[in-house]
Amino acid sequence: MFVIVVYDTLAERNPRILKLCRRYLHWVQRSVFQGELSAAQHRSLTHSIKDLIDTSYDSVIIYRIQGPHGVQTQTIGQRLAHEGPVI
Amino acid sequence: MFVIVVYDTLAERNPRILKLCRRYLHWVQRSVFQGELSAAQHRSLTHSIKDLIDTSYDSVIIYRIQGPHGVQTQTIGQRLAHEGPVI
Repeated sequence: MFVIVVYDTLAERNPRILKLCRRYLHWVQRSVFQGELSAAQHRSLTHSIKDLIDTSYDSVIIYRIQGPHGVQTQTIGQRLAHEGPVI
Repeated sequence: MFVIVVYDTLAERNPRILKLCRRYLHWVQRSVFQGELSAAQHRSLTHSIKDLIDTSYDSVIIYRIQGPHGVQTQTIGQRLAHEGPVI
């Protein structure tokens, strides 16, 4: 499945959620990650996000789109990321 | 089609792109909008974004997902927006 994660967290938590998301997905814009995940990877990422954020303050939205053809992505302006392999 | 817009623009342009996106979509998080658009609305929004931003600096990503069932949305933590009608 194709996954998009957008987050709005307290500044002091940003580095850790950035680091976490980078293990699974591609950074494409400030607080925005995307990429292909298996169901197991999606469960693992979701679980780790819940452990990491303060759910009474922070907000993380995860969009799941079945199959890569389900979504068309269009960038207007600068493409900030280079879609190399997830490291 | 279901559309997600995420933007990273120079601060002075944020109010205008916020106002523009509000005419078409629901605000769900800082710099993140979502909602259902017709093909004509999508064309009109895309055109207005191109007119408004500095494409040599700003970055706007538009995800288009065909059909509302194509995407599942999950919020972890705070749901910052109330999905009332687009005003």
